[in-house]
Amino acid sequence: MRNFKIALAQYCPSIGNIALNAKKMLEQAQQAQQQGADIVVFPELALIGYPPEDLLLRPSLVKRTQQGLSTLQQIKDIIVVAGYVHIDEAGQRYNSAALIKNGEVLGVYHKQNLPNYSVFDEKRYFTPGQQHLIFEHAGHKFGILICEDIWIEQNTQQLTQLGVETILVLNASPYEAGKPQTRQNLVSKLSKTYNVRIVYVNQVGGQDDLIFDGASTVTNIDGEIAARAKLTDEQLLLIEYNAEAKAYLVQKKPPALDTIPEIYQLLVMSVRDYVNHSGFSGVILGLSGGIDSALTLAIAVDALGANRVQAVMMPYTYTAQISVEDAAAQAKRLGITFGVAEINPIVNGFMKTLYPFFGDGPADATEENLQARSRGTLLMALSNKFGNLVLSTGNKSELAVGYCTLYGDMVGGFAPLKDVYKTIVFELAKYRNAIEKTPVIPERVITRPPSAELRPDQKDQDSLPSYDILDAILYMYIEEDLSQDSIIEKGFDAEVVKKVIHLVDRNEYKRRQGAIGPRISSRAFGRERRYPIVNGWNAGA
Amino acid sequence: MRNFKIALAQYCPSIGNIALNAKKMLEQAQQAQQQGADIVVFPELALIGYPPEDLLLRPSLVKRTQQGLSTLQQIKDIIVVAGYVHIDEAGQRYNSAALIKNGEVLGVYHKQNLPNYSVFDEKRYFTPGQQHLIFEHAGHKFGILICEDIWIEQNTQQLTQLGVETILVLNASPYEAGKPQTRQNLVSKLSKTYNVRIVYVNQVGGQDDLIFDGASTVTNIDGEIAARAKLTDEQLLLIEYNAEAKAYLVQKKPPALDTIPEIYQLLVMSVRDYVNHSGFSGVILGLSGGIDSALTLAIAVDALGANRVQAVMMPYTYTAQISVEDAAAQAKRLGITFGVAEINPIVNGFMKTLYPFFGDGPADATEENLQARSRGTLLMALSNKFGNLVLSTGNKSELAVGYCTLYGDMVGGFAPLKDVYKTIVFELAKYRNAIEKTPVIPERVITRPPSAELRPDQKDQDSLPSYDILDAILYMYIEEDLSQDSIIEKGFDAEVVKKVIHLVDRNEYKRRQGAIGPRISSRAFGRERRYPIVNGWNAGA
Repeated sequence: MRNFKIALAQYCPSIGNIALNAKKMLEQAQQAQQQGADIVVFPELALIGYPPEDLLLRPSLVKRTQQGLSTLQQIKDIIVVAGYVHIDEAGQRYNSAALIKNGEVLGVYHKQNLPNYSVFDEKRYFTPGQQHLIFEHAGHKFGILICEDIWIEQNTQQLTQLGVETILVLNASPYEAGKPQTRQNLVSKLSKTYNVRIVYVNQVGGQDDLIFDGASTVTNIDGEIAARAKLTDEQLLLIEYNAEAKAYLVQKKPPALDTIPEIYQLLVMSVRDYVNHSGFSGVILGLSGGIDSALTLAIAVDALGANRVQAVMMPYTYTAQISVEDAAAQAKRLGITFGVAEINPIVNGFMKTLYPFFGDGPADATEENLQARSRGTLLMALSNKFGNLVLSTGNKSELAVGYCTLYGDMVGGFAPLKDVYKTIVFELAKYRNAIEKTPVIPERVITRPPSAELRPDQKDQDSLPSYDILDAILYMYIEEDLSQDSIIEKGFDAEVVKKVIHLVDRNEYKRRQGAIGPRISSRAFGRERRYPIVNGWNAGA
Repeated sequence: MRNFKIALAQYCPSIGNIALNAKKMLEQAQQAQQQGADIVVFPELALIGYPPEDLLLRPSLVKRTQQGLSTLQQIKDIIVVAGYVHIDEAGQRYNSAALIKNGEVLGVYHKQNLPNYSVFDEKRYFTPGQQHLIFEHAGHKFGILICEDIWIEQNTQQLTQLGVETILVLNASPYEAGKPQTRQNLVSKLSKTYNVRIVYVNQVGGQDDLIFDGASTVTNIDGEIAARAKLTDEQLLLIEYNAEAKAYLVQKKPPALDTIPEIYQLLVMSVRDYVNHSGFSGVILGLSGGIDSALTLAIAVDALGANRVQAVMMPYTYTAQISVEDAAAQAKRLGITFGVAEINPIVNGFMKTLYPFFGDGPADATEENLQARSRGTLLMALSNKFGNLVLSTGNKSELAVGYCTLYGDMVGGFAPLKDVYKTIVFELAKYRNAIEKTPVIPERVITRPPSAELRPDQKDQDSLPSYDILDAILYMYIEEDLSQDSIIEKGFDAEVVKKVIHLVDRNEYKRRQGAIGPRISSRAFGRERRYPIVNGWNAGA
């Protein structure tokens, strides 16, 4: 028994780019070795990145993986534990960890518990492993688990029964609000219960709608957190095991965050990574004077810097003067590129062309949608011409009930607030304003009643219940799967509940065509909540 | 042993509407009983409809299913075999078949083989069954299988070893080109190999992007097809077993179709069902004078009748006179509502608003997209005002390479040609023209070189390889998962192959926001081909 060091490679892969990832992993392993690490641990499926989805079905994966592993085998004098896709001779795929030392693969562990719920489809791709892998180094016994495995308590139990002193856990555990704390509680409790140390290494960075928060963690047997890596950023975290104390040396840890700051930081990360990984020079968004676009703008500037952010205010007849003022004020405070583009000539063009069809009939939602779609098309034109990605500014509450215009305010490649309820939008805006001396969002944007400004004196609350009631109903119906009757029984107005649920059901078609956005809840629209568009569920209730 | 009759209830459920489905199933069972049937067999998950997706996660499913089963238990003097979701006391869900007689559930079979590939996610929801169910009626031994089970040969083998003489198979087997024949070949071969009769009952109708073709089939032990139900329509098919001949009496069958007519009929069905099940009064589409919109229009009219179809021609400066003429000619031949709406005032409105941003710089794709988006917004305005669903007219080839404008020609709630390659579009158009004395699509629409008409003298083949080459490359990359190198090795030009694959990869973001459309291939975009948007796969090749 002697002292040793482990490096937790909390890293952000380029999904699918095995050659690039292997190169990057090699560099990190070399760095770890130079810093005296005995072992370097990478996240789950680090070689291809998580989630690779149907790239896993491509036959050339076999060859590419072999090449990637060859790259990793170049490193000497350090044990590499890295997630990759193992494909056996029968063509079965496994979600695996390779144990590599001095050019040799000493062992392979296959993930035993494959999640196939929520955002996970691992049974679509992988065969489950059947046995544990244990190895010894410096007189210390190590076991390996992969992500879901650690949530199944018997795996930890079995490993400790086999004498394992430290479990290395490779993860690509997607964020949801409060998840970093939940994970930390889990490993802490398992450590304490089973007298085992846990080295929990997580992927970091945004990948499409999933965000990986990092926060890799090391525990000692008393459940104490010996070390924790940063949220949102890559980090090579070194820890040292003291053989005499039988413990990892306790380090200074980044402070734990409350939920609102945590969500804010991760939304910033998701925008940063989506824009950079897609290769866009910057972003553009429509600034309306309302709180959603104001918050989206603040996030964009924090993610990319003011010089990569463009905003445009697109007023029409029904736009209040204070909206124009507040949009300009925020743009000025943040120092972004800002322009104003009146949409009256465009709406007039549409109405002229449509006159032979519409005649002099009364205006309805059609004309409101025309305003929103004129703005959407303008944003896309500016995006096409200057190469900035359009950020869609809608929130989860309005997306849930369809209080948004398809091809209008819904246009965009990425929707930072897609999974953020309106009541949380307010909290995030207040939080962002509180952390700087000069608030970046004009106070009036937060305090004035929300309005889409698509007709005179319109307010959101003309058509919808107040946002605290709306969000409460939405949360129970979407996140908790409660039925209409159960929600009404909790004391909500029956007509309001029925209306809200009806709107959620019938607007699936809109959501299906919306931009992707970062998942922060436990039931995000998109890959996680899979509902039919033609859906008679509540029609039959 | 005596003669008996079986009714195959090839039926179209309302997805999620358990109460309505139960009522409809009760009616069909009563009808079957009145026609002298001993047994009526419904498709897989008939009570909730296939695929119910995450409706399966709703807790009130338990109560609703119980109520639905109670309805089915009202029927007397006939054995009902019906697919439903069984939930056990531990809360585990099974994809099951209930055997009901005179108010009693005599037995329950749980599907043993749960597909979790292609469009299927059954392991997300269901626990697999572990044992067979056998019952006797009229001195004849029956076994039950559910869909995927019949594709696993050992299930049929085991049932026959247990003495089963007829296997009842409950299915919700989605269509893909040639699938009806493949299924028929399978049951015929199994019947012959194992000396067993097979009663194969399939769901019928469109549900979102999946289409169920019906074509329920009955075989005798020599593999002969004794009976086959219609393609595309509900049918209560009665068959009679002759105990002396030990065979089902052979009936006149609907003629088998070649692939192109089969695809055509099923596209028609998919439009009919999506529009009717969504409750739209009719459809509207943009008619450009090109072949995609011409074929979409023909399908729409065949699906809904001319009086439920509206088309609008939206010419601009670059629209050829023959496009205007051909669009009008087709509209006249089909007798639909037709209008012309010049988009020049709209495009001018946009350019005026954008002038302060764009200045006098040269036109590029931005201005082309503005034309397409002006048209898309016009269609949506007409849809909003008059309540018709917008049909998107794009095909699989252009969607694959992104030769289409997001929020422009991609707008719409349903895209009938979404999974149809351009070369097949031509064949379908020729087929539709051939079946009537007066062709519904003007000949010139089929023979002139395809063009998006977004700039002067533009042809598709200026930017893309010819469609036979493009489709061949796309098929190999998408359907067959061949790598770039493998495709080039087959003799295709390396630069062309690289360009096409690059376009497919980088246009995932467009497809993700496109309308759903009927799946007719074995690798449809959407629920079947699940690719990351940020995707470094070929960047790393």
